[in-house]
Formats: sequence, structure tokens, C-alpha cells
Amino acid sequence: MDKLTTMSILIDFYGKLLTSKQYEIMDLYYNNDYSLAEISENLGISRQGVYDSLKRSEKALETYEGKLQLFNKFNKQKEDIRVVLEKLIILKNDDLSNNKLGIELSSIIDSLELLLDDNE
Amino acid sequence: MDKLTTMSILIDFYGKLLTSKQYEIMDLYYNNDYSLAEISENLGISRQGVYDSLKRSEKALETYEGKLQLFNKFNKQKEDIRVVLEKLIILKNDDLSNNKLGIELSSIIDSLELLLDDNE
Repeated sequence: MDKLTTMSILIDFYGKLLTSKQYEIMDLYYNNDYSLAEISENLGISRQGVYDSLKRSEKALETYEGKLQLFNKFNKQKEDIRVVLEKLIILKNDDLSNNKLGIELSSIIDSLELLLDDNE
Repeated sequence: MDKLTTMSILIDFYGKLLTSKQYEIMDLYYNNDYSLAEISENLGISRQGVYDSLKRSEKALETYEGKLQLFNKFNKQKEDIRVVLEKLIILKNDDLSNNKLGIELSSIIDSLELLLDDNE
């Protein structure tokens, strides 16, 4: 995942823990593709000030994720769902007897149940 | 959800943002069922000190969830998965023609895909 995507997701996850000014600068830079110069001009802060704020915020967001791993947890859950989805698509395209279907569905249901238990 | 369950989950989500001492007290109280007196004795802190620390930590965890809503987000995702699971169980118990099965599976696949898109 490139830095822009990662930061955009971390802003979405932990952005509310930044100050409103820090959040605004991160949002303009990472979600709205403003340049440092444009943010500087729009907010009346020096270009260096914008840069410093971005670096501080990036570090803060990375620290939150380092400690909490919630983005990682979400991602893992999403991967698990994707696996189930793949299996269902294969099942849909197969021409199965009702017996075989029952077995396949049981296995898929088991993995979904496991997925839910993992996150209790 | 009762307070004990809620706090236990919030500790799991945001506990790492507490100080190690705060975390230890919360963990003993909410996850290991220690009384205030027992924590006080074990950690060599006054009973009032333990109580104050618990209240501060509870408030901190609630503030994190108030801002980030990540527990809420996880819960919502889990509910969505549960709906899919219910549909699969019904499907498994039904004796469907392959045609009907295809339609049902398509609908379930659609909801899973929507669920994944929601969390992009």
C-alpha cells in the first residue's frame, strides 16, 4: 500500500485524535491533494509550518496504529470475508448435487462463524 | 450491553492508549474480577487511588470511542456478517433447484461485496 493510501486510511481511523488544525492540514494534503504551498496560502501558515504539522500528524497516526492495530484488525477481517466471498462465487458457478452443496455450505458457514467468534 | 462487557471491550480496543499503571488497574478490575480492596493491596495504592484511576480510565476509553467509533464500526460489520450467515444457514436447509439457488447465492454475494465496499 502506498503512503498516500495508508495515510488516508489512518486519517479515517484516528484523525479525530488530532487537533482540528492538524486534522485540517492532513485532510487537505492527503484527501484533497493540496500542495504544501496551497495549504500554506489557504491557512495563512508558513510552508515550513505546514510541513512540520504534517510530519507530526503522520507520526501521531502511525503511533496510534502501532499501539492499537485497529486498521490491521479491520483489514484482516476484510481478508477473511473476501475468502468466504470467493468460495461462494465458486459455489454459485458450480453445478452441484444437493448433497455436495450441503457440505460446501457447511464449510463456508463454519468459516463465517469462526470469523465472528474471532472478534468477540 | 452491561458496563462490565462494554468496559472489557473498550479496554481491548483502546487500552494501549492508557498508561501502563492505568491499564493494569483496569485489567485487574474488569478482566480479572479483582475488588478495589484487592487491587489496592496488590499494587500498594490507596483504595481511593484505585477508584480515581478507574474513573479516569473509564472516561478516557469512553472519550476515545466517542471520537473514533471503532468499536461501533466493528460491531456494525459483525452484524452485517451475521445477516449473511443467517441467509446461508437458511439456504443450506432449503431444498432448492439449481436455478433458485443461483439467485439466492447472487443476492448473498451482493451483500458481502457491499459489506466489503463499505469498509474501503
